[in-house]
Amino acid sequence: MESYPMNGGDGTFSYNKNSYLQRASTNVSRATIDKVIAEKLDIKQFSPALTTFQIADLGCSIGPNTFLAVQNIIEAVRRKYESQGLSSQLPDFQVLFNDHASNDFNTLFASLPSDRPYYAAGVPGSFHGRLFPKASLHFVHSSYALQWLSKVPKELIDPNSPAFNRGRVHYTSAPREVSDAYTSQYAKDMVKFLHARGEEIASGGIMVLVMPGIANGIPYSCMPSGVMFDLLGFSLMDMAKEGIISEAQVDSFNLPVYAPSPDELTALVESNGCFSIERMDLAAIGSKIDDSFGGHACMLHLRAGMEGIINKHFGSEIIDDLFDRYLGKTNEFSDRLNSSVRQGSQLVAILKRK
Amino acid sequence: MESYPMNGGDGTFSYNKNSYLQRASTNVSRATIDKVIAEKLDIKQFSPALTTFQIADLGCSIGPNTFLAVQNIIEAVRRKYESQGLSSQLPDFQVLFNDHASNDFNTLFASLPSDRPYYAAGVPGSFHGRLFPKASLHFVHSSYALQWLSKVPKELIDPNSPAFNRGRVHYTSAPREVSDAYTSQYAKDMVKFLHARGEEIASGGIMVLVMPGIANGIPYSCMPSGVMFDLLGFSLMDMAKEGIISEAQVDSFNLPVYAPSPDELTALVESNGCFSIERMDLAAIGSKIDDSFGGHACMLHLRAGMEGIINKHFGSEIIDDLFDRYLGKTNEFSDRLNSSVRQGSQLVAILKRK
Repeated sequence: MESYPMNGGDGTFSYNKNSYLQRASTNVSRATIDKVIAEKLDIKQFSPALTTFQIADLGCSIGPNTFLAVQNIIEAVRRKYESQGLSSQLPDFQVLFNDHASNDFNTLFASLPSDRPYYAAGVPGSFHGRLFPKASLHFVHSSYALQWLSKVPKELIDPNSPAFNRGRVHYTSAPREVSDAYTSQYAKDMVKFLHARGEEIASGGIMVLVMPGIANGIPYSCMPSGVMFDLLGFSLMDMAKEGIISEAQVDSFNLPVYAPSPDELTALVESNGCFSIERMDLAAIGSKIDDSFGGHACMLHLRAGMEGIINKHFGSEIIDDLFDRYLGKTNEFSDRLNSSVRQGSQLVAILKRK
Repeated sequence: MESYPMNGGDGTFSYNKNSYLQRASTNVSRATIDKVIAEKLDIKQFSPALTTFQIADLGCSIGPNTFLAVQNIIEAVRRKYESQGLSSQLPDFQVLFNDHASNDFNTLFASLPSDRPYYAAGVPGSFHGRLFPKASLHFVHSSYALQWLSKVPKELIDPNSPAFNRGRVHYTSAPREVSDAYTSQYAKDMVKFLHARGEEIASGGIMVLVMPGIANGIPYSCMPSGVMFDLLGFSLMDMAKEGIISEAQVDSFNLPVYAPSPDELTALVESNGCFSIERMDLAAIGSKIDDSFGGHACMLHLRAGMEGIINKHFGSEIIDDLFDRYLGKTNEFSDRLNSSVRQGSQLVAILKRK
């Protein structure tokens, strides 16, 4: 199982300091979470003697977004108990923060809010497999984590395959065979994800999934992450042309991230059969992002999330040069970048365990 | 809340490589755990629909001892289900590994056995307070962690107090006022510990506590840890006399560790009132330790556990010199060290939640 943790610690290029795009998304989904808990969560469906309400955040990284998200969930559940006159039966809350074992849990634990209204635990491991005891979870949240594939499909780096992804780092602007390989890997991963969650979530439990998505039928090259990855590919190919890295290195490097369409995810959920779909739609996140989000912010955002995987493949010595070039590309292609941000690109799926 | 994690990582002086004294203790208590689960654990007392059997290891450090301990517990609980013809009702197991937030959880998570028969979670925080939801635990284990006080009693570093601990780093071989200050702090900490566990452990749940202890009425200077800390104090005072550190630095340094007697712990448990005492006794650990345990091993053992706290007070530059001197002391005082190891010094307390 491959894993590429976000940049740890608290420095200039840390995920901690550069995850405001994801935080903007958290804010978008706060209203969503309030609404789903008010309208869809049936607390009487859980054991009447429920003493612990268990919440899992899958792909939590190191904060602070995960803390905001779980705080929102708990406040909404508390309001639900109050509105139903059940305040005296309010359970304890336990939050299970999940990410790969290589995630920087030490930083996560050091930054836990001291006045948190819940018992905190860290759960290491891949969410493509089982992580929790059966029927133990009541609310599952995952924001900007499900785009990570469990691995790069093999055929992308096989020069004899029609899916060989020469000169690109992603399926954006690539031949159909390349995107098909990504689509197929995503489907396999989601089958495992949904199967595991189906076993872990108690009947009546809710799962809110927020991830990059793409409208049904829109070209990949119009999604914001697609544009960002194209520019990363252009920057790497410029470096290859100058001999700083080799073209073969670029050919063999592919980002294991994927953004599904609502139709695609709907089909996977229906095929699994454990969940009813309470909501499945796309929102644009552009309008919610601070106006200061420009090329520099875009570069920092990408670096915080992708430096680990780039380091591992190309070595750390190219990083500063690469992201300087990337910054130049964001200026050169600012129109394409800005128009992509106005596209619906945040997929929100709300599922309820039958 | 003060905390001093064991040496992290996997190097020469790591706790990971130098915790075999604690591991020897784990082996002693394996038979104990088998017996208590076979004889005292009443699985029918838990909810008949129990789907998750929750185990907590308090003060787990970074392994590998904690993995052996929880594996033993799970095997014994499985045998219990089988022996009662309840194999078909075997619940999932979830293990909650607890230590201070400053513990190296990243190393712990990276070394989790891949074939573990349980769902693993890390729980950061002090066990002198609440860590888990109410009545959520079925088995609690803590080995060689409860000797850590939550803090050094203030009067030990007050030159105007009769408990001022001049020229020593512990209550071993100290005036009565010094040991009284330690005893009083230990009692305050255990009141909090037992209160928190009383709320967290389900009725019928078992708690096995293993810690350094001392026979009722025996002088502190006869316990193994007492001898080790005396030698540490001697080494530091030698360095002070040579001007490498100051005597004031030694005077203001006190190890926040304590070993109670069975009578002392019994009184605290009875005063709490939530637990019945199923066993409370002392065992000698000397005979179970590999024969190669000598001065060098003793030095490595102490360094792995205490380097953090010594570093923090004296600075890292004295460490190598200090432990070279310490090694010399273990040779000089080898008779006292060896006779102390034959003393009963491992306190095992088995408590059952009423």
